[in-house]
Amino acid sequence: MSNTINLYPLSNFTFSTKESQPEEDPSVAARLQRLQNNYEDYGMRHTVEGVLVVHDHGHPHILMLQIANAFFKLPGDYLKPGEEEIQGLKARLDERLAPTPGTAFQFTEQHGIDNDWEIGDCLAQWWRPNFETFMYPFVPAHITKPKECKKLYLVQMPERKVLAVPKNMKLLAIPLFELYDNAARYGPQLSAIPHLLSRYNFIYQ
Amino acid sequence: MSNTINLYPLSNFTFSTKESQPEEDPSVAARLQRLQNNYEDYGMRHTVEGVLVVHDHGHPHILMLQIANAFFKLPGDYLKPGEEEIQGLKARLDERLAPTPGTAFQFTEQHGIDNDWEIGDCLAQWWRPNFETFMYPFVPAHITKPKECKKLYLVQMPERKVLAVPKNMKLLAIPLFELYDNAARYGPQLSAIPHLLSRYNFIYQ
Repeated sequence: MSNTINLYPLSNFTFSTKESQPEEDPSVAARLQRLQNNYEDYGMRHTVEGVLVVHDHGHPHILMLQIANAFFKLPGDYLKPGEEEIQGLKARLDERLAPTPGTAFQFTEQHGIDNDWEIGDCLAQWWRPNFETFMYPFVPAHITKPKECKKLYLVQMPERKVLAVPKNMKLLAIPLFELYDNAARYGPQLSAIPHLLSRYNFIYQ
Repeated sequence: MSNTINLYPLSNFTFSTKESQPEEDPSVAARLQRLQNNYEDYGMRHTVEGVLVVHDHGHPHILMLQIANAFFKLPGDYLKPGEEEIQGLKARLDERLAPTPGTAFQFTEQHGIDNDWEIGDCLAQWWRPNFETFMYPFVPAHITKPKECKKLYLVQMPERKVLAVPKNMKLLAIPLFELYDNAARYGPQLSAIPHLLSRYNFIYQ
């Protein structure tokens, strides 16, 4: 029954804040330029993101970062060349959401809360054929050298966890029904998450 | 590496025809009425459909039935009350696509082609909250008694196979790029198949 997953209520999770984490690139153009520069040096970029699922009143919600009250993204980032995927995803999740030494960190220590991440199935792969913004959930025909592959992994949230959110971001719990068929607001990748999760049977703890 | 799947070329498969299989219900309204009648007798309807993947020139294609030159559907149908899912799906695939005794059947016998179906992962579940046409890839909030649950299963196509298509239908191989982002033509369920398959790494044999 690997398709059965326990979901814990949003209220089980403790949210604190930590130092701002400014965007690495000041614009989309700069980000694509960095992608191109890195591609010349290291080849295809490998990106990993986590789909953190909780429930609120028996309906699944995805934890998403909102930056500057504008766009939404999943926690995660690109890997260093040669970095292992699962360890790399855990490191990116820590960087973005783990408490830093201080109050929240002490809280987790005192309560014996496990700070490790339990990474589940790969849910999707998105391919970037060119140094452009659009990506596809397959390698388009005639594309032999994609520029980026982004993998989404299910992150199985434990019963309790402390998450520390950078001050320049919000962490929001978005219900599946809000994401579904809403590419206009969330884009093609995030609005497809309900599809990707539909094969799981959730148990609402 | 359960995410790695062999795909065989469309040209490996032999297509023949068999007797017409008229639609069970003459209209959408009649189909919904039958659903409602069956619900009162047996409870929630369980439907299973198969996603049959092949490749053409290194790009994945899905085998879909087209009825009356109009709408598309995956092979499959609803189960009898209490019928086991995987066996039921195999029976529905046989009913729709297996050669009947005759030329095509003899061909498979002579060439020792295995006529069993290899059913893989559940790819998605779609829920019908009411006796209406719309379905969602989750159980909507406040819905405690969905009227139908449709499961899509990956069907791993063997190296060679003979398929017999009812005369009133066509079996078409639709490429992923045609389905993607094309709910206008294929509807929300079929157009989501590229998302559902994106986590697999295909090996083009």
